[in-house]
Amino acid sequence: MSKIQPRTLSGFMELLPAKQIQFDRMASILRDTYSLYGFTPLDTPLIEASEVLLAKGGGETEKQIYRFLKGDTDLSLRFDLTVPLAKYVALNYGNLSFPFRRFQIGKVYRGERAQRGRFREFYQADIDVIGDGKLDPSNDAEIPAIIYQAFTKLGLKRFQIRVNNRKILNGFYDMLGLSQQSGEIMRTVDKLEKIGVEQVRELLLESGITTEQSLEILNFIRITGTNSQVLSSLEQYRGRNELFDTGLDELNLVVKYLGAFGVPESHFAVDLTIARGLDYYTGTVYETTMLDHPEIGSICSGGRYDNLAEYYTDKQLPGVGISIGLTRLFFVLEDQGYLNANLNTSPTDVLILPMTEDLAPAISLATQLREAGIRTQIHSEQKKFKQKMSYADKIGVPYVIFLGEDEINQGVAAVKDMRTGEQVKLSSTEAVSYILNGVTACNQGTPILDKGE
Amino acid sequence: MSKIQPRTLSGFMELLPAKQIQFDRMASILRDTYSLYGFTPLDTPLIEASEVLLAKGGGETEKQIYRFLKGDTDLSLRFDLTVPLAKYVALNYGNLSFPFRRFQIGKVYRGERAQRGRFREFYQADIDVIGDGKLDPSNDAEIPAIIYQAFTKLGLKRFQIRVNNRKILNGFYDMLGLSQQSGEIMRTVDKLEKIGVEQVRELLLESGITTEQSLEILNFIRITGTNSQVLSSLEQYRGRNELFDTGLDELNLVVKYLGAFGVPESHFAVDLTIARGLDYYTGTVYETTMLDHPEIGSICSGGRYDNLAEYYTDKQLPGVGISIGLTRLFFVLEDQGYLNANLNTSPTDVLILPMTEDLAPAISLATQLREAGIRTQIHSEQKKFKQKMSYADKIGVPYVIFLGEDEINQGVAAVKDMRTGEQVKLSSTEAVSYILNGVTACNQGTPILDKGE
Repeated sequence: MSKIQPRTLSGFMELLPAKQIQFDRMASILRDTYSLYGFTPLDTPLIEASEVLLAKGGGETEKQIYRFLKGDTDLSLRFDLTVPLAKYVALNYGNLSFPFRRFQIGKVYRGERAQRGRFREFYQADIDVIGDGKLDPSNDAEIPAIIYQAFTKLGLKRFQIRVNNRKILNGFYDMLGLSQQSGEIMRTVDKLEKIGVEQVRELLLESGITTEQSLEILNFIRITGTNSQVLSSLEQYRGRNELFDTGLDELNLVVKYLGAFGVPESHFAVDLTIARGLDYYTGTVYETTMLDHPEIGSICSGGRYDNLAEYYTDKQLPGVGISIGLTRLFFVLEDQGYLNANLNTSPTDVLILPMTEDLAPAISLATQLREAGIRTQIHSEQKKFKQKMSYADKIGVPYVIFLGEDEINQGVAAVKDMRTGEQVKLSSTEAVSYILNGVTACNQGTPILDKGE
Repeated sequence: MSKIQPRTLSGFMELLPAKQIQFDRMASILRDTYSLYGFTPLDTPLIEASEVLLAKGGGETEKQIYRFLKGDTDLSLRFDLTVPLAKYVALNYGNLSFPFRRFQIGKVYRGERAQRGRFREFYQADIDVIGDGKLDPSNDAEIPAIIYQAFTKLGLKRFQIRVNNRKILNGFYDMLGLSQQSGEIMRTVDKLEKIGVEQVRELLLESGITTEQSLEILNFIRITGTNSQVLSSLEQYRGRNELFDTGLDELNLVVKYLGAFGVPESHFAVDLTIARGLDYYTGTVYETTMLDHPEIGSICSGGRYDNLAEYYTDKQLPGVGISIGLTRLFFVLEDQGYLNANLNTSPTDVLILPMTEDLAPAISLATQLREAGIRTQIHSEQKKFKQKMSYADKIGVPYVIFLGEDEINQGVAAVKDMRTGEQVKLSSTEAVSYILNGVTACNQGTPILDKGE
């Protein structure tokens, strides 16, 4: 029979077993952390009617959409988890309670140009809090506090959550009479890190604003220092623009409560240069960078919006949310050697090698181990002993149990610790606690090993 | 602004929060059970190159495929988890250890005619064991034993796993000189439950076999009774056909080890009428029915195959696997009132209502609760007390904590049990253990409540 060459599409991450276990461990920590903060899990379809998914229309994203006909129906794969959330909330408005706190960890699709580290199918791990009409600004502080917790539980240390407020930016540009041009100016200022102050100044002047205005802008974005220094520098502008003042109040509140939520100063910074590209952010905005890898860009971004679902409903649904690009983050962490190789990535905790033809004693021991929560595999293949041990090595199993006539007659099991090579004869009850302890030990530690602070 | 009507495509399950939590709880039990038996998780892409996914080609399935072009690339959404597994194993053969035991719980897509209880996007929850060249028949007993465990942990009681062996069937038809027609005959016999013996007899005769042959077939499929009765009835055919004898040996072994794995006789039955439609099963086959809902058909099916990946590789990769149609199962269970409504489906275990403007004390209490693993939400919205309590009722939270000036000054929290209405003042440490106990209690029990045996 002629064969088809098996392959996985480029831009689609498909992991080998040990890596998949590492990925799942990270996803599971995010799920648990989000749950701890009272977010409810959602799982919306990957396919939506194109008319619904693309209600907003236009833009760069549309070209990347996986869109197709099935029969007469025009369908699209979701390209983020926010639009499906907007649809969900609008559709189920009457059945939801607000503030509605949901998390979703799911795959999204973007037909980007394939290149290393760019994915066409990738996981996003999102949290959002949606209010009905209003939503208290304290939520804007809880969101990055959750991200701080999540990253810390993952083992990431050298990261910083940067916070800004669009009202401050919009208010500031309004003071200068530059409301019309503010979008363009923010895009220019956003390039600061990449191109430096001089080039930003040139671009600003080219865009037709006065030297004085450009000076004001450059002074503004050069406000740096500790969070309280930045906040107090911003006080000099107070009283000149209502929107600015509201934004400054919100930012003060966010900084205050971030501290109360236990986020250390070292891990969040007020940064007046970040704005987030999307128009729909209207208040607090977030970006998160790895301090040792600024070239990677933001690994977790989001912000406050006034109107989640304006394309679907007249209800005013303000919200605040944040998204981790999990697939890309995993790729980067693996690529940069951050993954903790000490954690158990074997599919099983113990491998039983039965040495008798009758498997019944092995099965009964396996049942006892599994009842204690120990992941157990019986190696029941007709293979040579050496081949079985080589299998045990390859899957990296921490314990092997030999079960021959002698052991069965003596009512014991020969348990081998594969890391130390030590072998002991134990009753099945002793084997359970011996292995449980050992397995707990080899699951100690975080999925990420960061170099520390 | 004109609005787009928000909607979810028909045939796509999208759950409200409480139901989603019930669904996730079931999925999580399957994941844990599969893991306990040493299966490694995989997560393959939802999209594959059509040429790869449809390597086998033809058949009824192909019409149902979601297939489309993105640029010049011909893509398809996976319609099961077996073909992607075959691709994965062929592609990564050199990096895998055999027997390769994997589970995958993921969405698959079939453009079926939309009707109640039929889904176009649905979860499958699969386990497979793949051998390299050979695979021991004892695996054929472990697979249904895992399903027995999984269903039992879910709380399902009145179900039966039916087991047969294709070698017995093929060997039997070979004895009668009916090898050529065996496919058609099995499809006819498969209708036995639906149409009854008389109609089966008529269909058999119409298909051109002799009266004597049809009599032999009817006698054969009428072999019923306890498993040992059926097995001993089958002994009368031994010695007439080699394939039959092998199949009978395998079936004997499966029945023996199913017992050793702790599956009670009441929950598995040798059933000579089941054959599974697919050609690629070559030995043991499984179907699982709900005893009180035979009309639903099989909720979990699978079997043994000789060649997982013959379209991709010359390697002989025999395997055995089984699949639960999780979305359909969940639909049926909900529809038939099987879901355990006593379990906590609130997104949070405790809702803190701060009664002071400063949220810092509430945040600090929330931090303490979360550190103890208690899912905690702070209700920080500016709303009336009554509205907040109505929110607590609507999300079904088991505990509410009131935190006012008095409590803060006294260093206590007022904890209200929302089911009993009882309210107690506790120190934060006492509150943690009080709530932990209560939450553990309201998570007792299985996601499914079956009527028992």
